[in-house]
Amino acid sequence: MPLPRSFNSLVKSAGRRQLTSRYAPPYSRLFLRSCSCSVPQRLQKSVNFVAQASDKNAQLNPTTSDPPTPPTDHRILAQTHDLFITSPFSPGSPLLLPNGAYIFQRLQSFLRAQYPQFGFREVITPTIYKKSLWETSGHWENYAEDMFSVQGRGTTGHTDNAGTGQDEEFGLKPMNCPGHCLLFKDNIMSYRDLPIRYADFSALHRNEISGALTGLTRVRRFHQDDAHIFCRPDQILSEIEQTLKFVGMVYDTFGLGPYKLLLSTRPEEHFIGTVDEWDRAEQQLTAALGNSGREWALNEGDGAFYGPKIDIILKDANGKEHQTATIQLDFQLPQRFDLQYQASPEELKLDMPPREGETLDTANRRPVIVHRAIYGSLERFMALLIEHYAGKYPFWISPRPAIILSLNQDPKVLDHVAHLQAVLAGLRTPDSEPISFDSPQDFTARAKPQPLSTIHLPIDVDTSARSLGKKIAEAQSKKYNHVIVVGPKEVETGRLKLEVVNQPNSAASQRVLESTVGRAMQDSDWVKGRIAVGLDAGTARKYFEGLVDGYI
Amino acid sequence: MPLPRSFNSLVKSAGRRQLTSRYAPPYSRLFLRSCSCSVPQRLQKSVNFVAQASDKNAQLNPTTSDPPTPPTDHRILAQTHDLFITSPFSPGSPLLLPNGAYIFQRLQSFLRAQYPQFGFREVITPTIYKKSLWETSGHWENYAEDMFSVQGRGTTGHTDNAGTGQDEEFGLKPMNCPGHCLLFKDNIMSYRDLPIRYADFSALHRNEISGALTGLTRVRRFHQDDAHIFCRPDQILSEIEQTLKFVGMVYDTFGLGPYKLLLSTRPEEHFIGTVDEWDRAEQQLTAALGNSGREWALNEGDGAFYGPKIDIILKDANGKEHQTATIQLDFQLPQRFDLQYQASPEELKLDMPPREGETLDTANRRPVIVHRAIYGSLERFMALLIEHYAGKYPFWISPRPAIILSLNQDPKVLDHVAHLQAVLAGLRTPDSEPISFDSPQDFTARAKPQPLSTIHLPIDVDTSARSLGKKIAEAQSKKYNHVIVVGPKEVETGRLKLEVVNQPNSAASQRVLESTVGRAMQDSDWVKGRIAVGLDAGTARKYFEGLVDGYI
Repeated sequence: MPLPRSFNSLVKSAGRRQLTSRYAPPYSRLFLRSCSCSVPQRLQKSVNFVAQASDKNAQLNPTTSDPPTPPTDHRILAQTHDLFITSPFSPGSPLLLPNGAYIFQRLQSFLRAQYPQFGFREVITPTIYKKSLWETSGHWENYAEDMFSVQGRGTTGHTDNAGTGQDEEFGLKPMNCPGHCLLFKDNIMSYRDLPIRYADFSALHRNEISGALTGLTRVRRFHQDDAHIFCRPDQILSEIEQTLKFVGMVYDTFGLGPYKLLLSTRPEEHFIGTVDEWDRAEQQLTAALGNSGREWALNEGDGAFYGPKIDIILKDANGKEHQTATIQLDFQLPQRFDLQYQASPEELKLDMPPREGETLDTANRRPVIVHRAIYGSLERFMALLIEHYAGKYPFWISPRPAIILSLNQDPKVLDHVAHLQAVLAGLRTPDSEPISFDSPQDFTARAKPQPLSTIHLPIDVDTSARSLGKKIAEAQSKKYNHVIVVGPKEVETGRLKLEVVNQPNSAASQRVLESTVGRAMQDSDWVKGRIAVGLDAGTARKYFEGLVDGYI
Repeated sequence: MPLPRSFNSLVKSAGRRQLTSRYAPPYSRLFLRSCSCSVPQRLQKSVNFVAQASDKNAQLNPTTSDPPTPPTDHRILAQTHDLFITSPFSPGSPLLLPNGAYIFQRLQSFLRAQYPQFGFREVITPTIYKKSLWETSGHWENYAEDMFSVQGRGTTGHTDNAGTGQDEEFGLKPMNCPGHCLLFKDNIMSYRDLPIRYADFSALHRNEISGALTGLTRVRRFHQDDAHIFCRPDQILSEIEQTLKFVGMVYDTFGLGPYKLLLSTRPEEHFIGTVDEWDRAEQQLTAALGNSGREWALNEGDGAFYGPKIDIILKDANGKEHQTATIQLDFQLPQRFDLQYQASPEELKLDMPPREGETLDTANRRPVIVHRAIYGSLERFMALLIEHYAGKYPFWISPRPAIILSLNQDPKVLDHVAHLQAVLAGLRTPDSEPISFDSPQDFTARAKPQPLSTIHLPIDVDTSARSLGKKIAEAQSKKYNHVIVVGPKEVETGRLKLEVVNQPNSAASQRVLESTVGRAMQDSDWVKGRIAVGLDAGTARKYFEGLVDGYI
């Protein structure tokens, strides 16, 4: 089954008008459906770029007429690497096995490593909030059936003084925005403090019907690379520009693309804020898109009632389009939560039009919130990557980067295997004293804490009594990136024989290998179309580090 | 208020007998209360080592007769660094601000960096499970009032076919063990596969009454450094030995201690398994304790009905004892979840005594589960560290490791500040082309992805027009570890002036500084009792990296 099922069926069964009317007013519903935070779950939709786009940008990537071959389902591919299981005890909450958790954490670590240069700081926020918070945000009414309600089993249920009452019902959070508004509101903010950028990887829950649940793509519990930027209206341009750069960096790293950017603007009716505010915001978004150097299109009038947005439409190797990242402006939540900042002298000079029900201090202004997610749902992004790489992962996220096979079971061979495993995994230096295969715990006894900067790799070993041929066959079927064979000869020389078996970007990894060993590969380094070279342990480890540092 | 309040009041108001009888049978309740996973919340209790300990180990650390000065409450200390806030919308679920999240993640990263050498692999498991799972594990009945129940708001509640029904009630997980049992059970396991060690940092929820909630110590939502080891009975010794080593490494790194180990053995009545099984397990625990080289004591007959355990009792600088880490054997959950593994030839030779209600295949055996947590609750451990360090954090976990103060607002000075900030933060190399203070985003535009191995540091700057004296005073009150002053002289030389202001382990950081600059500190390097040296940016960054790598 191709990914994501819902996306395709939506496109087939409904033209754009139908889609729009489906999510049309009452707009309070549209607000929550369209929030950036809800998109990865089910708001994936397709826009025909040819029909909607401005002339300048239309049809840069025309769809081929041949129907693409659907990739193997991520649930099938995931079995090869033991990535996850599902359980009837928690439908829609996939349980990630160690290999799946490894990929998940690599994705998380990659973004975390980029956050400082883009000015994001992580926060950790609650999983449950009282009903009264969800009433303030509007979710309790508008997101009703998609939310889980939570209650203490020792309490008697909802009571009258619900605002502060101990017995008040809770909602299990489907989105992070209200929690981030609480954080923003905790301090008196000045125009100088903005923008403030909170990132959050919290688990989120949405109550999809059980019949729709599928692997990692249609789930009830998932994690987003969620972030909210609280900024001044005049900061929108630079924030959007930076976010588009961030999106580009991430997708380039995974070799994903091409992708198109789609700007949805003010609806004709039912919008909050003034036309002037919308115009200024849309001008900034348009400028940011123009400066991005990427293909983009206009989806006029299709913005949410609370602000314009940019969706990222990714085309996969099979020509299928996925809506992944999203960037949405929000004029509404700042109002609902009465968020304010002390205005700058320039802002105070500008007239502020009066608004119905505004509680804004005259010396203050409302920030704009930018909801943004680059992966979207990490689970769904993982599913996309699983199919994109067809189960052959780049070294840096591969849960099976290398396996060491022993040629026989000679104790000396086994000890050398144990030593190499520890060195290649990053646990020991190449010149460490020998360790015994039979008591590998000996070295942890003497170990100092491993530093935070060390990249550990899950290097496996196969020292079974089976023939080398059988071991190699199994290693290949399990799609290890590298196979390393160790026999008496390697014990003598202290080296290892490394074969590059699976690497999606083989040219880049060859360059890293060549730069590590300091020479170009020669004919003698190739065996049956694959690189197979002898290395010492230190050089092999450096090559591995080079692959990880280069995201290869 | 000293930490943790509950702990102290418990000790004062109740002797050991009372405590025991409070947690006495019906033992089904005791099971869940005493599970390692529940300890960090409220099962903290004190044992008088003098009275309970074996003669050999008693009174190595006699309590002083002077009442210790209570440390400043972690909630007060946390305000200096803006670590967390609480909200009436989610009582007992502290919201971690960026600085608090930074410490939290450093704690998490530290353990993650140690997991590979101790053989732990992380998994990611659901937050909610159906009632039927909690009935299998026994939590639904025995942990009743401490659990939150969860229901989809669009459904009609509990239905008859509850085992698989869509409408079945869920429980918000208070512990990870049942989820890990599902993972273990997914595969057919052989004796060769064991031990299997699953680690999990999931958020957990327990419904404490709202009146008891306090800061980070008495909470409803928290995270544990939780792990479950599934092992063969003959592997208990080495697993416990390794775990005790791990505990020692962690506590030494934070400068915590001394601590004592307390072994609780088989109760006289109401225990599961055979006396023989218990004896063998206790022998292994005793041997592991003996080999640990640490002070330990016996708490005879005080084990849980489902297995013996080792508690770690930490004495803080004020002489107060905290129960933090815990290691518990569990013979019960493997039975409840019918966990099995294919027995080894040696195990098959041993007689297996028949047990009531056993569903074990004759060729199989039940694994033993070791529940273990080293920090316990990360939130509570953070509170302990906040008080332990009295708000002066070691560099590697400090959310304010350094601040750069500009002597004036000359554009050249500001550009140099921007450059130094990027270099010290780990975002640029010292020889990168200059950047402009006014458009710091320029360099992210050209930036390549930051590698995973780079340690980023949150280096702050103060370029306000205020006097240097005022800036320094504020930097000191905010307890930055280092203050760096940059003026015209530094612009000219391309260097910086670094002052070491706050470092708990000042001798160790001086050693790192000396080894980085390649010379001993001299009288001229000291100003008013503090080290203040001129460095180039590259050397300063290396010194910072040395501090982080050394966990100083």
